[in-house]
Amino acid sequence: MTSTLAIMNFLGASVSEAKLAAHETRDIFLPNQMEHVAQIAVDIGGSLAKVVYFTSLAGKRGGRLHFKKFETEYIDDCIDFIAELMDDARQLTPPGTEQVLKATGGGAHLFYDKLVKRLPGVIVQKEDEMECLIAGLNFFITEIPYEIFTYNELASDPIKFEEKTREVYPYMLVNIGSGVSILKVTGPNDFSRISGTSLGGGTLWGLLSLLTNAQSFDDMLEISKDGDNRNVDLLVGDIYGSDYSKLGLKASRIASSFGKVFKKGVRQDRNAFESADIAKSLLYMVSNNIGQIAYLNAQQHGLKRIYFGGCFIRGHPITMNTLSYAIKFWSNGEMKALFLRHEGHLGATGAFLKHQPIGEARHSYSFSESCIPNLNNLGCVYAGLDQSNRSMRSSASVE
Amino acid sequence: MTSTLAIMNFLGASVSEAKLAAHETRDIFLPNQMEHVAQIAVDIGGSLAKVVYFTSLAGKRGGRLHFKKFETEYIDDCIDFIAELMDDARQLTPPGTEQVLKATGGGAHLFYDKLVKRLPGVIVQKEDEMECLIAGLNFFITEIPYEIFTYNELASDPIKFEEKTREVYPYMLVNIGSGVSILKVTGPNDFSRISGTSLGGGTLWGLLSLLTNAQSFDDMLEISKDGDNRNVDLLVGDIYGSDYSKLGLKASRIASSFGKVFKKGVRQDRNAFESADIAKSLLYMVSNNIGQIAYLNAQQHGLKRIYFGGCFIRGHPITMNTLSYAIKFWSNGEMKALFLRHEGHLGATGAFLKHQPIGEARHSYSFSESCIPNLNNLGCVYAGLDQSNRSMRSSASVE
Repeated sequence: MTSTLAIMNFLGASVSEAKLAAHETRDIFLPNQMEHVAQIAVDIGGSLAKVVYFTSLAGKRGGRLHFKKFETEYIDDCIDFIAELMDDARQLTPPGTEQVLKATGGGAHLFYDKLVKRLPGVIVQKEDEMECLIAGLNFFITEIPYEIFTYNELASDPIKFEEKTREVYPYMLVNIGSGVSILKVTGPNDFSRISGTSLGGGTLWGLLSLLTNAQSFDDMLEISKDGDNRNVDLLVGDIYGSDYSKLGLKASRIASSFGKVFKKGVRQDRNAFESADIAKSLLYMVSNNIGQIAYLNAQQHGLKRIYFGGCFIRGHPITMNTLSYAIKFWSNGEMKALFLRHEGHLGATGAFLKHQPIGEARHSYSFSESCIPNLNNLGCVYAGLDQSNRSMRSSASVE
Repeated sequence: MTSTLAIMNFLGASVSEAKLAAHETRDIFLPNQMEHVAQIAVDIGGSLAKVVYFTSLAGKRGGRLHFKKFETEYIDDCIDFIAELMDDARQLTPPGTEQVLKATGGGAHLFYDKLVKRLPGVIVQKEDEMECLIAGLNFFITEIPYEIFTYNELASDPIKFEEKTREVYPYMLVNIGSGVSILKVTGPNDFSRISGTSLGGGTLWGLLSLLTNAQSFDDMLEISKDGDNRNVDLLVGDIYGSDYSKLGLKASRIASSFGKVFKKGVRQDRNAFESADIAKSLLYMVSNNIGQIAYLNAQQHGLKRIYFGGCFIRGHPITMNTLSYAIKFWSNGEMKALFLRHEGHLGATGAFLKHQPIGEARHSYSFSESCIPNLNNLGCVYAGLDQSNRSMRSSASVE
């Protein structure tokens, strides 16, 4: 076998602004990529398997990075998809070319034998999950314009893309998958897992699937939109009749998530509560809790920039707003919650790049007119974006 | 009206060792109390109303402090009970004696008008909730022997009563009611509410009442005993197939609470999970989370002694063990989780004492043979206590 380690060129990389379904993730266009890039990467988590792969433009320079998701429960579908991609890739590369699947996440270990068996001729290489997460996040921070943003529902534009900064480190990554991992990152290859919590996406989805009729993640997020958590949560005002002003606790503050449920009426009628209200309460509960634990860890380690990654967020406005609010509330505005458009694919992207690590000194790109989001083509997440974001446009270079 | 502020004498105070039902709280015997103490105290929280009152021994010196609980949902039952006590007390005091109800907790505000209306002739005095919690806790720490203990299920005696120490402050109180308040206490009257979480007892009870057939708090705790959370929680081993040893995450560690629920099977059959397993998972989830947030706050404020109060704990071994384990795990054994036999009545006891504040310099008592727990008469919580605890017996005096 011959090895073809294609050099990757990210100059001019831009996020696709095509209209997408809610569960899809935007391609990244690489106009200056010369060769086909043959490796495929998969990050198999407790609930979802994420795939990253490259396709060349037919007959000309350039190509695209693609980002797909599968439920880990149906891992065979994911492996079938990878097998098809590998078959396609064989058409584009010289006979005998080495084919590599970079695999990370717990499932890279749990399903290793299955991957090897189901992908004959493909070299399956396991990569450390945390290393991949950080490699992926560093790539998005430093190479991809219009990727990182803050969220504030009270602003006329809830989404505000981050200006580039030379000071990438230190930062904290809160990766919210089935569970939550919290990593402190002090340099390109210098990080540690400082904390985590078992109350993550799996908790929200698990409890919602027991308590509502939602059939998918997106159903659950959808029904929560019309919910009113005050029908199930006990507020400070429900206990005090007013604010507890001496302690600065407003009447509207949630004192106890689901605190209204355990009442006489409920014990007689378990259907007394609306799915939408339950969904909203659970979403607030899990998001607030993650925000608070993130803040406490950031405080302990003196970190101000907190990136939220993982498939829990899914560009969902209520989730992002709750996380942002929690960080702002607890830190008195001293810390910042940061989100990514490719939040769920940090690990898979990191694994993809591991095959051909980008040079640490290559952190530079220029914003160009072509990579400004097409305002006529935005998904729900970007609904609040308008022309004022164009003022962010600049020619910035980092490192 | 004449005012009778009875002087309270706590010399020789001891916790009753009579056999109790699970939901009952032990009396405190005061052998040297000379006069009847007429005030009654109530702490009305979001889920439970707690009452503290005194009864004299007929015709001789001494009496008892009693500790009762009612569901806030049935506040009228609680007020009826207080009205009866007030009627009884009128028989024991000179005609025209002032009768006082000290009321704290949110319900002291929410139900103030109702209390005044339903208790004619009784002066209802509102007291600040946090002040009462601390006054009550300080009383139990400094005046009541065999009150404070640590819990470790791996030890031959899971319950170990604390030796007295002169160094009472600083400490942290994590009060777990419907929601959770976290207070930093640096002196007898010097404290602040530093944090809290909405994931408290109300969350556990609320979700359990939606997800299981349990009809009461104690039902819920009872069914959790036989549960196996591994049927609903996603463990590190479920994702990795083994430990994630590079990060020190054992295969048995919970990666995602309820992370196994959102699977193909469940969407087709919502009854695929046992109530006992759900109860165990929820109990672990809420207790672990409180323990983690408690640790992070204690770390931030440099506190080593963490008292857990409030009606969530109820002397339940799994709960105490989970909280203890979380504190030990996160702090590498540097912090200590402390429990109280009167955990649920800190606020009501503090309110009771507010009527006749104990002098700050009166923190002294002697352990005596009579106050050693009667080993033939222990409730479930104290099942592990044996003769070895007698070695704690000492004549200690604190300030």
